[in-house]
Amino acid sequence: MDLRVGVIGTGNIGTSHALSLHGEVSGATVVSVYDLDADRADAVAQDIQADVYPSPEALIGSAEVDAVVIASPDDLHAEQALTALSAGKPMLLEKPLAPTVADARRVLDAEVTLGRRLITLGFMRRFDLGYVQLKEQITDGEVGEVLIVHNVHRNASAPYGLLSDRTMYNMAIHEFDISRWLIDEEFTTVQVIKGRPGPQTPPGQFDPMIVMLTSATGTLVDVEAFVNAHYGYEVTCQVVGSLGVLDMSDGAFITRTARNLRGQSIPDLWLGRFAEAYRAELQAWVNATRGLTRPVGASAWDGFAATSMAEAAARSIGTGSRESIELPQRPALYS
Amino acid sequence: MDLRVGVIGTGNIGTSHALSLHGEVSGATVVSVYDLDADRADAVAQDIQADVYPSPEALIGSAEVDAVVIASPDDLHAEQALTALSAGKPMLLEKPLAPTVADARRVLDAEVTLGRRLITLGFMRRFDLGYVQLKEQITDGEVGEVLIVHNVHRNASAPYGLLSDRTMYNMAIHEFDISRWLIDEEFTTVQVIKGRPGPQTPPGQFDPMIVMLTSATGTLVDVEAFVNAHYGYEVTCQVVGSLGVLDMSDGAFITRTARNLRGQSIPDLWLGRFAEAYRAELQAWVNATRGLTRPVGASAWDGFAATSMAEAAARSIGTGSRESIELPQRPALYS
Amino acid sequence: MDLRVGVIGTGNIGTSHALSLHGEVSGATVVSVYDLDADRADAVAQDIQADVYPSPEALIGSAEVDAVVIASPDDLHAEQALTALSAGKPMLLEKPLAPTVADARRVLDAEVTLGRRLITLGFMRRFDLGYVQLKEQITDGEVGEVLIVHNVHRNASAPYGLLSDRTMYNMAIHEFDISRWLIDEEFTTVQVIKGRPGPQTPPGQFDPMIVMLTSATGTLVDVEAFVNAHYGYEVTCQVVGSLGVLDMSDGAFITRTARNLRGQSIPDLWLGRFAEAYRAELQAWVNATRGLTRPVGASAWDGFAATSMAEAAARSIGTGSRESIELPQRPALYS
Amino acid sequence: MDLRVGVIGTGNIGTSHALSLHGEVSGATVVSVYDLDADRADAVAQDIQADVYPSPEALIGSAEVDAVVIASPDDLHAEQALTALSAGKPMLLEKPLAPTVADARRVLDAEVTLGRRLITLGFMRRFDLGYVQLKEQITDGEVGEVLIVHNVHRNASAPYGLLSDRTMYNMAIHEFDISRWLIDEEFTTVQVIKGRPGPQTPPGQFDPMIVMLTSATGTLVDVEAFVNAHYGYEVTCQVVGSLGVLDMSDGAFITRTARNLRGQSIPDLWLGRFAEAYRAELQAWVNATRGLTRPVGASAWDGFAATSMAEAAARSIGTGSRESIELPQRPALYS
Repeated sequence: MDLRVGVIGTGNIGTSHALSLHGEVSGATVVSVYDLDADRADAVAQDIQADVYPSPEALIGSAEVDAVVIASPDDLHAEQALTALSAGKPMLLEKPLAPTVADARRVLDAEVTLGRRLITLGFMRRFDLGYVQLKEQITDGEVGEVLIVHNVHRNASAPYGLLSDRTMYNMAIHEFDISRWLIDEEFTTVQVIKGRPGPQTPPGQFDPMIVMLTSATGTLVDVEAFVNAHYGYEVTCQVVGSLGVLDMSDGAFITRTARNLRGQSIPDLWLGRFAEAYRAELQAWVNATRGLTRPVGASAWDGFAATSMAEAAARSIGTGSRESIELPQRPALYS
Repeated sequence: MDLRVGVIGTGNIGTSHALSLHGEVSGATVVSVYDLDADRADAVAQDIQADVYPSPEALIGSAEVDAVVIASPDDLHAEQALTALSAGKPMLLEKPLAPTVADARRVLDAEVTLGRRLITLGFMRRFDLGYVQLKEQITDGEVGEVLIVHNVHRNASAPYGLLSDRTMYNMAIHEFDISRWLIDEEFTTVQVIKGRPGPQTPPGQFDPMIVMLTSATGTLVDVEAFVNAHYGYEVTCQVVGSLGVLDMSDGAFITRTARNLRGQSIPDLWLGRFAEAYRAELQAWVNATRGLTRPVGASAWDGFAATSMAEAAARSIGTGSRESIELPQRPALYS
Repeated sequence: MDLRVGVIGTGNIGTSHALSLHGEVSGATVVSVYDLDADRADAVAQDIQADVYPSPEALIGSAEVDAVVIASPDDLHAEQALTALSAGKPMLLEKPLAPTVADARRVLDAEVTLGRRLITLGFMRRFDLGYVQLKEQITDGEVGEVLIVHNVHRNASAPYGLLSDRTMYNMAIHEFDISRWLIDEEFTTVQVIKGRPGPQTPPGQFDPMIVMLTSATGTLVDVEAFVNAHYGYEVTCQVVGSLGVLDMSDGAFITRTARNLRGQSIPDLWLGRFAEAYRAELQAWVNATRGLTRPVGASAWDGFAATSMAEAAARSIGTGSRESIELPQRPALYS
Repeated sequence: MDLRVGVIGTGNIGTSHALSLHGEVSGATVVSVYDLDADRADAVAQDIQADVYPSPEALIGSAEVDAVVIASPDDLHAEQALTALSAGKPMLLEKPLAPTVADARRVLDAEVTLGRRLITLGFMRRFDLGYVQLKEQITDGEVGEVLIVHNVHRNASAPYGLLSDRTMYNMAIHEFDISRWLIDEEFTTVQVIKGRPGPQTPPGQFDPMIVMLTSATGTLVDVEAFVNAHYGYEVTCQVVGSLGVLDMSDGAFITRTARNLRGQSIPDLWLGRFAEAYRAELQAWVNATRGLTRPVGASAWDGFAATSMAEAAARSIGTGSRESIELPQRPALYS
């Protein structure tokens, strides 16, 4: 029996999820979609023979819907997640959990009170073959203890405008989550070092920035966050261990040599780099929601921790100093 | 409505197909399996809640089965394909179409007589991201006209024994098919150059060999076929054009530096390299069989052409000379 | 007429210089050597038909010696440089200029007072093909304005013991110099972030460390300094510009695939990586000293600036804070 | 005492040799030059304070000249080599030894009769760091016995016109020599497979071609010779052993990422790729000629063997068949 899924939000990522669930994920049927822009919702619904619902609440509450994908604008995540929790519906919630720590906390607390894990955060990198192999190779011990993680995250052009604190909540948050996952530790301090703004950076904003994180045991993690890198979209990760080093690149298959240059293409957008990760994430979420596997992917706790890191980083942009990342005790639900 | 699939043969590749159709392909349900070894069939059937059938004929003929995957031993391919053609069932047939040109011809003729394309040959490389991008980049014209294709195909150890003519039918046949697909031409001559046998090669056999193919327009394609390369499984392809060169590698994500060495892991077996290609192949086959797309993948004609190339190559092992590849006119069904 | 060179110090690097000047540099003859260990000096002298002198002063003062190479222990650099300045002898002085800023200042002042540039600092990376091409490609403008430089400097095992401030003076000093040279700016602040010590780090010492430098215009330069990286010796540099990125690696020619691994060898020691840079440095120094070219290589001012950076970095190890790098006005002699 | 060298021919390569001997080789002084174009000779001579001689014979015969570099047009090599042999002068003779086997044989016989090795052939690849490391890694045994060598040699545009037999004598001859050196065997047969001519190939000529060589023990060596590859100059070599594979590339230091592409520059001309090999070759030749080392580099026998291979290859272009390479017994002088 297929899982009947409703999709809230049919922008880029919501549409991508709906089509993927429909056409390349086993065990799921998209039965309903919602978007504020009804025409956009209609277009997707028609492609995949789904119904259009008049409101997120109607969709979440429908007896036809077993589980929901929430891909609405960031500032609606918390309310819709709370609604889905109330309705007892499992959900794949796009990151961030919420755009503020206070809102993220409300969602976390609600799930803890409920006592059941219904939220999976859409940190798709945990399903990317590159990161999966990176974690396997950390775990196999060949490079010893992890001492440093160097992350690079570059966009061709600013996907969310150039408000520098938003860079933390929306872009570097991927590195915040994946670094926690890679080294299986929480972080305690963060400092943002602001670089000389590039020629396309508006006054008062900072780009690129280097985010320097320290974990509870002293592991260093740095993130170069560069939202206007111009040349393309690129994500790399280097893990420095006591016995060796692991480098994650983009798994290019083709090297082209032409016009005195030999090299690989760099995409403009992140969907190219992570398309397969999104598919694997959806398949894993469907399998877990159907009870075939135990829960996988990021939890509400993971989403809360990442948002807390982003908030401390945004504070450091203002102060220029090292800021503490304050986390409560991890609730037993997430152990 | 899901496509109801029966799987004939639950060896390595048949089991892999059954699990993939069950767990990561949209729109298909594996309803039945068959294997000469009933215990092996039972084990797979139990995993995926499918029925076990007592014979290939029973499975093919069942009203519960919409389409079949044929992953039986090579010498049964032709008969089972003919049975499925008679029953009007679409099939994904593992390569080769048949182990002799004569048998391949019988199957081809039967499908032509039927007048409908029911056979998809399991040349999974056509769905590999590496080869797909390679073909895209040939097509975009940046490297000009294709003049040469250099292929390398190495196994860690001989997967089919070391009978040198079997190397052509079972191993180099992948290059025969993918080269036809890449340059969209038929080949007219083939010459096998036998190298000095490595220390593990039995007397009277040859390994490595270089297969030199010439297309109708003079394009050169060479294949280094090395079944006992010891170090691991590796497939590469280099396309030399009039304006540039394309190199396809294995899309490694991780570079590990340890013990004075920086590098990438090489797998021992081909399933690691082509796992994703198999999934994509199955999804595409299901989609096409359900009528959502037009036919994709290799046809019976493609399988016939590849077997014809293998036969001419095997002849050249004996003669040491350049041999002609004789193909009939391509039937209209495949244009 | 060949330049007659005396070499002071016949340890690793002094011997390497003497042999290189003798056997692979045009226009120079090593006429004399000195080492506190007379046997060691004798051995080298015999190899290259040079005389052994009883003291550095005797060698510097000799009428047979046109120019000197100073490769003595670090704490003797300043005195010997002052002696050579007094004698009016051009010198190639191994880095650092001096192990303290105060001593470095005395040498700088002496040369300024003399009014002639006789000192070339042995920052050989300026002659390394990798760095030379990196600078050329910065200059050609294809990657836009330089915004960040990421440096990595790893030793297999601690070459100078693990006194963390020595890591700045002796190891990271190479990055201090080369970063100044690459972006043609002075640096104003430095902060050292201390990582979790690896298992081989003695108590009270720090390894690895990340050194974060800010230039006068805000360009960020970071240096991962890791003296016990275990796996080998490796130096990389990545320049992030407003339009693109440049990566410098070690120019490996050979990729070996064996035992399920494809990769490049990493040397244990720096001489392998920079052997050719040392040769080019010596040839350039001989040419300039003979008047065939204008002065090339690092000056006393460069050596002074690098030592000042190291001192501020060492301070930051103690304080954990960002420290100012105080430089006087650059004397006109070096403009 | 420096070796006093005369340089015959001041075209590209002769001038390069003269400047290199003058400015970056230890132990040699260029005392004289000759070129048919006296102005060209004058220009070089002035740069390096050498004399201009009125004829090759005068230069070779001069008591001021200890040794000669012969970099004249190919068809003068044999006569000038014979003159130098008569004069008892050691020489570095640019490849080929002669443009015909008959002429090459005359020179070989003359040196054998003389009973002293005075000729060093300018096969500079033997001094290239890439090939040197490749041979070291063959010798260390990690990849087992050599079974196949794949060579690629591409020029941006035809440096010698597109007379296909000249491709063998002037371009592929580098691979003929280096393959002999790498595997330390003679070759017995050669077959040239002519590809479909690219759009810039004149009628009646062939480009690219694949040259297939078989050694006495059955080792296969193939050479893709492509003189109009358009994209740049590139030389690669892959050695396939019974236990692993070695790939030689161009040792690029810099990877540039810009405009959606990450890659390395490819030069247009061979001098960039092999500049350092030429320097090392000259230094080694000077050292050996001064008696500091035993003879290194290619001998007259090596030059004769390479020319014999080229002649057989040129024959195969005409016949399309496998041709024998006939070599006399190797004279004892070269053992």
